[in-house]
Amino acid sequence: RDGLQNEKTIVPLADKLRLLEGLVATGLSKIEITSFVAKDWIPQLADGDEVASAMMKSAAPNGPAFSALVPNLHGLERAQAAGMKSIAVFMSASETHNKKNTNKTIAESLKTFGEVIPKARAAGMSTRAYVSTAWGCPYEGAVDPKRVLAISKELRDMGADMISLGDTIGVGTPLQTKKILELILAEIPVKNVAMHMHDTRGTALANILAGLELGVAELDSAVGGLGGCPYAPGAAGNMATEDLIYMLHGMGIETGVDLEKLVEVARMAEKLLGRALPGKVHQAGVSGLKASAASSSQT
Amino acid sequence: RDGLQNEKTIVPLADKLRLLEGLVATGLSKIEITSFVAKDWIPQLADGDEVASAMMKSAAPNGPAFSALVPNLHGLERAQAAGMKSIAVFMSASETHNKKNTNKTIAESLKTFGEVIPKARAAGMSTRAYVSTAWGCPYEGAVDPKRVLAISKELRDMGADMISLGDTIGVGTPLQTKKILELILAEIPVKNVAMHMHDTRGTALANILAGLELGVAELDSAVGGLGGCPYAPGAAGNMATEDLIYMLHGMGIETGVDLEKLVEVARMAEKLLGRALPGKVHQAGVSGLKASAASSSQT
Repeated sequence: RDGLQNEKTIVPLADKLRLLEGLVATGLSKIEITSFVAKDWIPQLADGDEVASAMMKSAAPNGPAFSALVPNLHGLERAQAAGMKSIAVFMSASETHNKKNTNKTIAESLKTFGEVIPKARAAGMSTRAYVSTAWGCPYEGAVDPKRVLAISKELRDMGADMISLGDTIGVGTPLQTKKILELILAEIPVKNVAMHMHDTRGTALANILAGLELGVAELDSAVGGLGGCPYAPGAAGNMATEDLIYMLHGMGIETGVDLEKLVEVARMAEKLLGRALPGKVHQAGVSGLKASAASSSQT
Repeated sequence: RDGLQNEKTIVPLADKLRLLEGLVATGLSKIEITSFVAKDWIPQLADGDEVASAMMKSAAPNGPAFSALVPNLHGLERAQAAGMKSIAVFMSASETHNKKNTNKTIAESLKTFGEVIPKARAAGMSTRAYVSTAWGCPYEGAVDPKRVLAISKELRDMGADMISLGDTIGVGTPLQTKKILELILAEIPVKNVAMHMHDTRGTALANILAGLELGVAELDSAVGGLGGCPYAPGAAGNMATEDLIYMLHGMGIETGVDLEKLVEVARMAEKLLGRALPGKVHQAGVSGLKASAASSSQT
């Protein structure tokens, strides 16, 4: 979802379902499939009801958990109508970004989710809460990690199962990541904390490494690195799932994901979007064998 | 040098000098400007003598140290003729890559450098020695770190000032990096060890972070991430200098490099090569302010 909504190209429903089925087949444990924000707000995801209904109908009992973005009670109703068991709410740690992104103040967002989350919980749904701009805000610059913590705790107290901390504009670096996470993890158990890193400046994987060292085990990403600015050919979007999985497998961390299949899905995504995607493993291939046979005098 | 030689486009001498002068102005401390391998072996760097002479003539006393790749005694003579004070020798930790890349066995390479390095030293030159394929070989696959260590020690014993360990095909992951470096650093002082990472699978910066944690302070890179496969639009080459510097500065590590100037050089390199380069900071800009103003419902 997060990748597709930032692409210029609107992917038709049937292709979205093919892409999602491809991701399901890789063995990923959680997939955020769409968004229930107002249909005219994000045209790329205007088919949210259809995507959700189709995916929930085809869902295998031991398949991945599907979630969708829910901005308010109406969004929750749409998620319930589609038979979803998991939702995600979202707000920013900086006032200006929250207002521009959701047309609400932070206080208004918290009030809304104070209704949405308990209602979802009462309906037996799990809730993920995104706290965006935790590493920096495009309007305000630096963001105080204490503010990130305060918002995270409020959302957790409302009943959110996971808090996913977002480097929405991809400005983070590893020592900053360590500092933010140490503050959060002092008050929220690590099993309830996820990282949602954008690779805008190439630091996403290094930041994730810093998070892994602190025990963070739930990592958001988008296949191919979907979501970059469509006007800059190699511009980065979300952390590319295949590059993340490559690193994790190389570190001996089991993910249950079939990396070769994932690479195929990234290549499918490139065809659907009609542009080269910035993820690297889907371009280079998983194995290094013979990859560099052609060139000479390399170091 | 390492970036340019793997690009399809041959950059004319005058443009190379402009690119190098741009890099000099950023404040980088060491720049490898060209190669003295046989001129028909790497057409991209056939103007090595001209590049070296021009750069050494314009060198400021407190400017960066310029080095060039030297494959043998004849290469050393060319470096001396150009007035160079630093050279770099290169070989692989895997037999097959060394043979394909240099047309020598590992034993023959060591014999050659056993003549080149002391002769350079006697002439008052410093020597950097690349040990390539240290993370993996495109022909043999896994490479035993003990072999990397043995070769590194031999080169060091010959008088090499720096050993630069190369992930030539970009297959490395952070725990592997830690394992290789711990083995090397047990026998070679960390001030004499550099890392030379390629970003083929997106892991270069995470590997460098692992190296920083062990104290490695000399890090090779190429502006813009030059050196990717020219046939895949976003394909990665060397670690992009601007992304590396962005992370280091974000971690409070002083480099003396003007990142804004470096971003301009990366953009110049894109024009000279006629293709988008994979480095990210030169595309996104250094500051995150306002960078994401246009899109909505981001997490």
